[in-house]
Amino acid sequence: MKKVNIPKGTRDYSPDAMARRRYIFSTIEDVFRLYGYQPIETPAMENLDTLLGKYGEEGDKLLFRILNSGDFLSGVGDDQLHRENIARLSTQISEKGLRYDLTVPFARYVVQHRNEINFPFKRYQIQPVWRADRPQKGRYREFYQCDVDIIGSRSLLNEFELTEIIDKVFERFGMNIDIRINNRKILAGIAEVIGEGDRLTDITAALDKIDRIGADKVNEELRSRGLSAGAVKKLQPIIQLSGDHTRKLEHLGRILSGSETGIRGVNEMSTLFGYLESQDLKASVELDLTLARGLDYYTGAIIEVLSTDVQIGSVCGGGRYDDLTGIFGLEDVSGVGVSFGADRIYDVLQQLDLFPKKVITGTRVLFINFGTAEEKYILSLLPAFRKAGIETEIYPEQAKLKKQMSYANGKGIPHVALAGAHEISRNILTIKDMETGRQQELTTDQAIRHVLESKDA
Amino acid sequence: MKKVNIPKGTRDYSPDAMARRRYIFSTIEDVFRLYGYQPIETPAMENLDTLLGKYGEEGDKLLFRILNSGDFLSGVGDDQLHRENIARLSTQISEKGLRYDLTVPFARYVVQHRNEINFPFKRYQIQPVWRADRPQKGRYREFYQCDVDIIGSRSLLNEFELTEIIDKVFERFGMNIDIRINNRKILAGIAEVIGEGDRLTDITAALDKIDRIGADKVNEELRSRGLSAGAVKKLQPIIQLSGDHTRKLEHLGRILSGSETGIRGVNEMSTLFGYLESQDLKASVELDLTLARGLDYYTGAIIEVLSTDVQIGSVCGGGRYDDLTGIFGLEDVSGVGVSFGADRIYDVLQQLDLFPKKVITGTRVLFINFGTAEEKYILSLLPAFRKAGIETEIYPEQAKLKKQMSYANGKGIPHVALAGAHEISRNILTIKDMETGRQQELTTDQAIRHVLESKDA
Repeated sequence: MKKVNIPKGTRDYSPDAMARRRYIFSTIEDVFRLYGYQPIETPAMENLDTLLGKYGEEGDKLLFRILNSGDFLSGVGDDQLHRENIARLSTQISEKGLRYDLTVPFARYVVQHRNEINFPFKRYQIQPVWRADRPQKGRYREFYQCDVDIIGSRSLLNEFELTEIIDKVFERFGMNIDIRINNRKILAGIAEVIGEGDRLTDITAALDKIDRIGADKVNEELRSRGLSAGAVKKLQPIIQLSGDHTRKLEHLGRILSGSETGIRGVNEMSTLFGYLESQDLKASVELDLTLARGLDYYTGAIIEVLSTDVQIGSVCGGGRYDDLTGIFGLEDVSGVGVSFGADRIYDVLQQLDLFPKKVITGTRVLFINFGTAEEKYILSLLPAFRKAGIETEIYPEQAKLKKQMSYANGKGIPHVALAGAHEISRNILTIKDMETGRQQELTTDQAIRHVLESKDA
Repeated sequence: MKKVNIPKGTRDYSPDAMARRRYIFSTIEDVFRLYGYQPIETPAMENLDTLLGKYGEEGDKLLFRILNSGDFLSGVGDDQLHRENIARLSTQISEKGLRYDLTVPFARYVVQHRNEINFPFKRYQIQPVWRADRPQKGRYREFYQCDVDIIGSRSLLNEFELTEIIDKVFERFGMNIDIRINNRKILAGIAEVIGEGDRLTDITAALDKIDRIGADKVNEELRSRGLSAGAVKKLQPIIQLSGDHTRKLEHLGRILSGSETGIRGVNEMSTLFGYLESQDLKASVELDLTLARGLDYYTGAIIEVLSTDVQIGSVCGGGRYDDLTGIFGLEDVSGVGVSFGADRIYDVLQQLDLFPKKVITGTRVLFINFGTAEEKYILSLLPAFRKAGIETEIYPEQAKLKKQMSYANGKGIPHVALAGAHEISRNILTIKDMETGRQQELTTDQAIRHVLESKDA
């Protein structure tokens, strides 16, 4: 037989994996909806001029491009059709690409539909994205993102609400998490007061690695990025501030008193923590001054969520951005959003055995097919089971009982219904519970009640 | 502002459209599950050698190909890099393509996972597909398919079950439909007895058009495809057989008595109609000998569903295939399946106003934000609403009342909660029902009950 395969870094989802993934998405969606967020979807393909230049040089290289259909060389002159022209050529023969994330398509969506949208716009979006990354363990070329954003409002109630949503989502999963929060304006203030106001990107890029490489290596990197020894020294007490957020914010208020931006950041965080204290959150929320995250479009709050029980990196993260739609010419639309990492959440739930038992809602009753007369009897009973909402099958072939039972086992079907001459003559069914092996003779009504009341229901 | 746009033939789905599409998919899925079908998903990209040659020459041209990432010219010799080599070039610079339908990926899935699958395998799959067709009204380059198949069983119970599923799905939609059924073996038998046994493809391709172009044009086409005048003449009484299926099958039994294949087809249809008569279907099921459908991989039953109230082409169709996985070298796996046309169903439900009113489950209560003190009061009440499962928002900005009310209107929020000094001092809320304009002062518990019991719930 020919070897068939799927592209590297992609996956098939079989029924069991589908059921678990759906549990994850529907749990998240249920919480989003409770807070008034609504779903949108955008096309898998976007025009390349929408995508190019939005993810840095590295990101552009990771875009999957679609070859123009038909005569893809029609716009290419003979003099251009050579190896040295490859960069330009790729743009000439390809106008569209697969979406790389949900953020840029969302920005494009907001700009394109700005006249129909009722702002502030609360949307979520759960769709696959594609990246031509080198595939490796836990990194795929096709994976789902799960983004929730509110756009068109600068209120810190939104940051608060998203933090609460995070708390509720992971509470429903039964996952213990730590929520870390920082503020880009505080980071900017710090850079300012240590006299390196124009080196914010260098500072945050280095700080972002503190968990992975430790403070010493971060300091080394800061110096190698050109920060003065004095500035690096000044930075130490700030990033190692201890105590709870009240204490940290008090200190920062003093340290940053010379920076208008810094003080605004401190005030924003005080307001946000004020909201958070008024509610009863399950997770701990910590002000973490080393939190920077790679993306440099955040302008206010920065949020990151870690599993406390499994070391797997962040399971959710995001922040405030003041210029999402500016890349498409629509200025002054502020938003804040977070993204849930479905693949990592899947791994944590799997590892900690947190998936609910009944997440796989497959068939609940299999009718064994003994022959033509029995088939007829069964067909007269089936509609009542389905009308009662019970997933019910009849084995389609008149196969050996062993084969049919093994089908039931393989599919994890909890109840098997048997009807032979004995049952037909009495107008009953024998119901066998697959886990216990117990068999009972029941009328149709009794059998339906039995299935509905059994613990797998 | 720059003009932003999405590729031709693709669509954004805004919250309203999303809600309606989800209603369609979840209605269909609920029925699939009641019959024991389970979901799978496959990657958007497949290797081109999986896709090429499966959809005919025309289909190959309509595949969206992914440009190889990195140096896509690396495998191309200088002597090959020219215009005349374009066909080969497209294969050299592109190894992957977007899926064109769900059938070929499903066949690939079955072959790849054959050792894990519990046969007979009942699966459904709802995912987008991509075709580089010329976009036009009602034809898109990205659209969802919704396929349900059972593979690994030759029993006609499966054809019966799928017909019943079709009936139940459209009953839930409130759509009136006609189900037409034919059998490829009967068509083959007819070709045989009119002495044109090797012209089956020509005959079915012509017959398939009878609804659109009429019998005269079909006869013309049959002659132009090389059928003898005698054969065309012999064909007429057969395709115009009238009466119910019992009568038609009786006639066919006589006419096809010389064709073993034909008689097998007649027997299959008798068995299927026998099953159908034992159940109480809402839709009418008709044996339609002119039904052939374009795809030529059907080997047994052919099924097509039409809306009786809206002329829009078939809203569902499919059939029995004996060699789905043969293209990948796994022989002798028979299956049967149908595909629901979500876009057309959407249009029919829209046109006949059949979408349920409550299909858009957005926010049910908006709390008006009057100021900081009011905000604090509201934040203490919000959790109770959400705990009761009520989608609840607080307007994030302390904006003018008019603006906040217009947000509620725009989002179709049925209840607005107002809390000012008056309400706070009495620990109550004023709930305004947006449709009637009626206002009531209620405690939190009363307000929650009021919302849960109102007709929008």
